[in-house]
Amino acid sequence: MKIHNFSAGPSVLNQEVLKKASEAVLNINNSGLSLLEISHRSKDFVAIFEQAILQVRKMMKLSNDYEVLFLQGGASLQFVMLPYNLFREGGTAGYLETGNWSSSAIKEGKKFGNVQVVASSKDTNFDRIPKDFEIPDNLEYFHFTTNNTIYGTQIKDFSNFKGIKVCDMSSDILSRELDYSQFDLIYAGAQKNIGPAGTTLVVIKKELLNRSQRDIPSYLDYAVHVAKDGMFNTPPVFPIYATTLTLQWLEEQGGLPAIEKLNKKKANLLYSEIDRNPLFTGHAVKEDRSMMNVTFVLNDESLKNKFDSMWKEAGISGVNGHRSVGGYRASIYNALELESVQLLVNVMKELEQIA
Amino acid sequence: MKIHNFSAGPSVLNQEVLKKASEAVLNINNSGLSLLEISHRSKDFVAIFEQAILQVRKMMKLSNDYEVLFLQGGASLQFVMLPYNLFREGGTAGYLETGNWSSSAIKEGKKFGNVQVVASSKDTNFDRIPKDFEIPDNLEYFHFTTNNTIYGTQIKDFSNFKGIKVCDMSSDILSRELDYSQFDLIYAGAQKNIGPAGTTLVVIKKELLNRSQRDIPSYLDYAVHVAKDGMFNTPPVFPIYATTLTLQWLEEQGGLPAIEKLNKKKANLLYSEIDRNPLFTGHAVKEDRSMMNVTFVLNDESLKNKFDSMWKEAGISGVNGHRSVGGYRASIYNALELESVQLLVNVMKELEQIA
Repeated sequence: MKIHNFSAGPSVLNQEVLKKASEAVLNINNSGLSLLEISHRSKDFVAIFEQAILQVRKMMKLSNDYEVLFLQGGASLQFVMLPYNLFREGGTAGYLETGNWSSSAIKEGKKFGNVQVVASSKDTNFDRIPKDFEIPDNLEYFHFTTNNTIYGTQIKDFSNFKGIKVCDMSSDILSRELDYSQFDLIYAGAQKNIGPAGTTLVVIKKELLNRSQRDIPSYLDYAVHVAKDGMFNTPPVFPIYATTLTLQWLEEQGGLPAIEKLNKKKANLLYSEIDRNPLFTGHAVKEDRSMMNVTFVLNDESLKNKFDSMWKEAGISGVNGHRSVGGYRASIYNALELESVQLLVNVMKELEQIA
Repeated sequence: MKIHNFSAGPSVLNQEVLKKASEAVLNINNSGLSLLEISHRSKDFVAIFEQAILQVRKMMKLSNDYEVLFLQGGASLQFVMLPYNLFREGGTAGYLETGNWSSSAIKEGKKFGNVQVVASSKDTNFDRIPKDFEIPDNLEYFHFTTNNTIYGTQIKDFSNFKGIKVCDMSSDILSRELDYSQFDLIYAGAQKNIGPAGTTLVVIKKELLNRSQRDIPSYLDYAVHVAKDGMFNTPPVFPIYATTLTLQWLEEQGGLPAIEKLNKKKANLLYSEIDRNPLFTGHAVKEDRSMMNVTFVLNDESLKNKFDSMWKEAGISGVNGHRSVGGYRASIYNALELESVQLLVNVMKELEQIA
């Protein structure tokens, strides 16, 4: 039976990507060697590495003002690296608080200086993106999380954001068309939209390198990685390869315009059902709904066991909600197919019929 | 043609390990899902994760005084984490300098306080392990690199080491029997003896957690990882799985006693030929020769092209030396088979015949 994987991350990848990744573990480029046992400085891997960077550049339409890195340690290490590199002693950094992950970023930022939480939606259990806030002048940088996996909210309008814009794009990277050059530093764990766990994409404006003037430990210094062309130390070879394959697949689908169209279609299908079906209520306010993570609850908790066994029987996996929200979370990242969303919607309709 | 992979790292893995890892990329535990797309908190992955930790504990014979973690960022990030966690303000840390990697560790240590290089073999291009040095009392810790990949030297006697012993074991981890409980902190990138690139093993004595009293960023704080049972953030799922398989394979071979016996046999075979064959000279002094990386040069450089084409034709890969030493480096890690070393020795003998 086909499994429909709505996991919040690590999450679904395309079958062709998995097939190629599996083959490479046995034999990369017909070399007779596994991808896992070749040098990261070998011709084969360097080509893979450079291709990943090139594809990011192309899809984000990045000029030479930007550097692209694949690091390790996830967004959690970026919460540390970004203030180390950008936060000058004595300054104030601004953070927008829209969920657990931005709260974690704030916690780490505070270890480097004065942090101002410019706006927060904590009071309403992060069911919305704060609006109408004023970003102070002279912030060291303004940090935000573009998509909030747990709560199912997403920032759609960046027009009032100003100063040096730093964002955690872990859960909606390369899922939509955006003017990526409006941002100064973008980072994202690969394991939701662009690959498996184990590597973190960092896109940084060159002029921000060496900004903080701190004595930064080498691994934590973006400028060190840039000076070594992204190979300061052994990169996570397999996660980067699977990411390269995913980016390639994304391009073959038609790139960001095509994937955004598909993602919108999937999201609309599911949100329409949530709004139509009297058994369900969405968590996020409508205008801030995420195209990536759809959060909803059953109005009548007594239907839980019935509903859970129905979607499990249908081959659906990973739709349990995070404990902070409860209910359900359907993660519908790039590689999730429309038919999987249709199946979930069908199960929701069936529940209505028999309830 | 079978390729004999003497790469210095990432390096050779056992064929059965590769086969299982390749299968898991398509379907893990017959779940219908790829290992790459399941949650790191799923039953399937948690079992893999716990097994890796258990196998390390078992092979190193670790008591409950130790914690075992699988982190990211390689030894390079450990160069930073170890002083952050262990180096108290105002103290002095001691480092033994035996090669490029220990020099890098020293460089990072200096960002946290006063560093004393207790002994160094830099003057003789790191062809030996310094002896007869005195380790001062009251050091914050004493740091050393147990095996030096580039130069082919290895520490065999730790009996005079004292204080808090911290070591980079990246290139000889789990390759020999040792009293591992004589060390206080051990770290190792997986990509030489125990897995592919992308995860770093850290073994730390519990009493060292929170030692430095610094305000440590969360990802860099061993105590944070320990408090979260090693899952503070999404671990590198695939690299850890391939590591679990490699540790399992190691155990099936008979564990450390058996692998040490094999590694000695491989090393003796190759060093005997280097010493016997008038065309070659070893780089490292005999008593400090590494069982993992065998470094040697041709006495007559004019034979280089001939020799290089001969080993390439034999299916040998990855024996070019590092630029710091020149000549050749045969890395004969755990998973390299005796027949591969025999083949290299045969080629060396053939060169002698025709030279």
